[in-house]
Amino acid sequence: MERELFGFEITHGDPSGARCGLLRTPHGVVETPNFIFCATKGTIKGLTMDQMRAAGAQMILSNTYHLHLQPGEEVVESIGGLHRMMDWKGPILTDSGGFQIFSLGHGATACEIKGKRGLMGNQSLIKIEESGALFRSHLDGSHRLLTPEKSIQIQRTLGADIILTLDECTPDHADRRYVELSTQRSHRWEQRSLDEFLKNDDGSQALYGIIQGSTYENLRRESCDFVSNRAFFGQAVGGSLGVNAEQMRQIIALVGQMKNSIRPTHLLGIGTVEAILHGVQCAMDTFDCVHPTRLARHGGALVFRDRGDGKFCLNLKNARFQRDRDPIDENCSCYACSRASRGYIHHLLKAKEQLGGQLLTIHNVAFMCRLMGKIRCAIRGKSFRALLSELLA
Amino acid sequence: MERELFGFEITHGDPSGARCGLLRTPHGVVETPNFIFCATKGTIKGLTMDQMRAAGAQMILSNTYHLHLQPGEEVVESIGGLHRMMDWKGPILTDSGGFQIFSLGHGATACEIKGKRGLMGNQSLIKIEESGALFRSHLDGSHRLLTPEKSIQIQRTLGADIILTLDECTPDHADRRYVELSTQRSHRWEQRSLDEFLKNDDGSQALYGIIQGSTYENLRRESCDFVSNRAFFGQAVGGSLGVNAEQMRQIIALVGQMKNSIRPTHLLGIGTVEAILHGVQCAMDTFDCVHPTRLARHGGALVFRDRGDGKFCLNLKNARFQRDRDPIDENCSCYACSRASRGYIHHLLKAKEQLGGQLLTIHNVAFMCRLMGKIRCAIRGKSFRALLSELLA
Repeated sequence: MERELFGFEITHGDPSGARCGLLRTPHGVVETPNFIFCATKGTIKGLTMDQMRAAGAQMILSNTYHLHLQPGEEVVESIGGLHRMMDWKGPILTDSGGFQIFSLGHGATACEIKGKRGLMGNQSLIKIEESGALFRSHLDGSHRLLTPEKSIQIQRTLGADIILTLDECTPDHADRRYVELSTQRSHRWEQRSLDEFLKNDDGSQALYGIIQGSTYENLRRESCDFVSNRAFFGQAVGGSLGVNAEQMRQIIALVGQMKNSIRPTHLLGIGTVEAILHGVQCAMDTFDCVHPTRLARHGGALVFRDRGDGKFCLNLKNARFQRDRDPIDENCSCYACSRASRGYIHHLLKAKEQLGGQLLTIHNVAFMCRLMGKIRCAIRGKSFRALLSELLA
Repeated sequence: MERELFGFEITHGDPSGARCGLLRTPHGVVETPNFIFCATKGTIKGLTMDQMRAAGAQMILSNTYHLHLQPGEEVVESIGGLHRMMDWKGPILTDSGGFQIFSLGHGATACEIKGKRGLMGNQSLIKIEESGALFRSHLDGSHRLLTPEKSIQIQRTLGADIILTLDECTPDHADRRYVELSTQRSHRWEQRSLDEFLKNDDGSQALYGIIQGSTYENLRRESCDFVSNRAFFGQAVGGSLGVNAEQMRQIIALVGQMKNSIRPTHLLGIGTVEAILHGVQCAMDTFDCVHPTRLARHGGALVFRDRGDGKFCLNLKNARFQRDRDPIDENCSCYACSRASRGYIHHLLKAKEQLGGQLLTIHNVAFMCRLMGKIRCAIRGKSFRALLSELLA
């Protein structure tokens, strides 16, 4: 039955290594490469799901850690499960819950990426045991144990289409020996996650294994082999990707070569234009990051031009936009660009009105969807390298 | 030309005193009685104008005080004027800017109604002179003088359809002698507002006079006569309405009998269901208040039933809604009721997610539009008293 509801077909390859595919789930087909937007606590901050659909979003992600603590997976289930609760009819991915516990517990730079606010200065991780991770709830201080089995059970109750195994996300500063032992333990946890998953598999969900190994080539290779040799539907690339952009590129390129090439592959927590373009070249199929939506709430609009700072970004809080009647991007057909001027958004941001961040979120979601559409179009037309030159020139 | 763009036609009367009308403006016709929603700083907090239109809103109000200080009327003009800036194609009303200055300056209970937050403890009013009101900006502390002429000039630059004269809003605790002198000064200010308005009148805006006089019958009568005898297109009922619901009902009833009966009449700052139903009986045509939208941001949903507390309100923060799969109101066809359960909204409110307040705002706007629609329908069908019994039973 699983094979009926889930599927992954690679439809186009490009000489660069990039590929297009169709990821089939019980809640619809996702064209890949694609971007998965973060609905951390069960909502894309400030947007209705109609606005997400109108902006072109195909898939979203929710965080098991946050939903387990509030409102709790049983509450989500009792109000209809994640899809119905959020009114999102498309595919959903949930993570294992480990990332938040570990990145915060270790105080790693990775905590910059997700879930930082409201958790700062709160070391959530108490202890890692063979059985799982003992942590402290940031909401009520209660002690909780997250085991591989428990993570799968929670994700089953939440009801996402694609779920992830529990792994340890090691910090950038961990030494080789620590990462080696951690990677081996993560593999044992992943095996237990898979066993738990298969015990009650009714075909309505698919499990991705996670490729760990931090910045160490041999550990990444071991992890690729481990995941590839087990009955996971897909795989996600997790763990430390190094301390700078160059190291990240090397690790992703390496994993791109060593991973199981016929399975859908998700690159966790990556969301800048440059990193996505590189990831696509390394045969990564999906990406997620809070970057586009968080940037919006801070006044940043993603654009293809005007990137003097190399960030594909306009800061609409800048005083130069005060009397600007133009839309964020005249070539964008999103709701914000059809209706609002840069000057109006500037005013809303200055006046601390929610609508400023909302309009920018709509635009940034639409931008990411347009970017991914351009990428797919270029791969299908065997012109991905030309797109790279155009965008990164 | 003014007569071409603006008009008010009373189409139905009810034995109760209530009436239906059509208020014609350059930006469309408003069916009366109707509710005008507050876009204080140039936005309905958290909603796009498409969401406002979908919820059924016909007219909105912006505050001259707030927009004058931020971003400034010239900035609004340079990005296309209020309608284009906000992307609101329907009629807009602006107030004179006086209410915020006076209600805060006097420390009156009226400041409970509007603009309180962020201004508390900041006595904005410095001095009332014959020329106008000297006040302090709550944003940068700068001293400013608002004269009747200046208020009209600002409102002309902002570009609303219907604008108001400058008056002094006296506090509830003012004594009779003070109110008498104040009402006379308000009349002089209103005359100056009208003179300034007529100087540059191109027919694109219409001016309402304001009926003052606080809780004193003879002063209210003087004010009704003053406004009625001058070339205002319509009139608004301002000033203190007393210290309790019974006194408010008496004053509104009195003004309802004494005012010019063929002009459109706006009751300022009134937004509860009970008060609107009473105002309609007293031939009030339009109403505005932050109540429906502010209530939403605090977790309150307006409903026709479940009003054990007499407030037509459900507090969705209440724990009893945690696992509630039902919509806010199964008879409501708004976006929120079509898509979200009470349990989901409860979760969003608890998690401090913007979307909770947004969904409730959509619902409360739709509720007010439904309420006003029911009222108009009942008046047309000569059954307004039956509606009163049904709603207030």
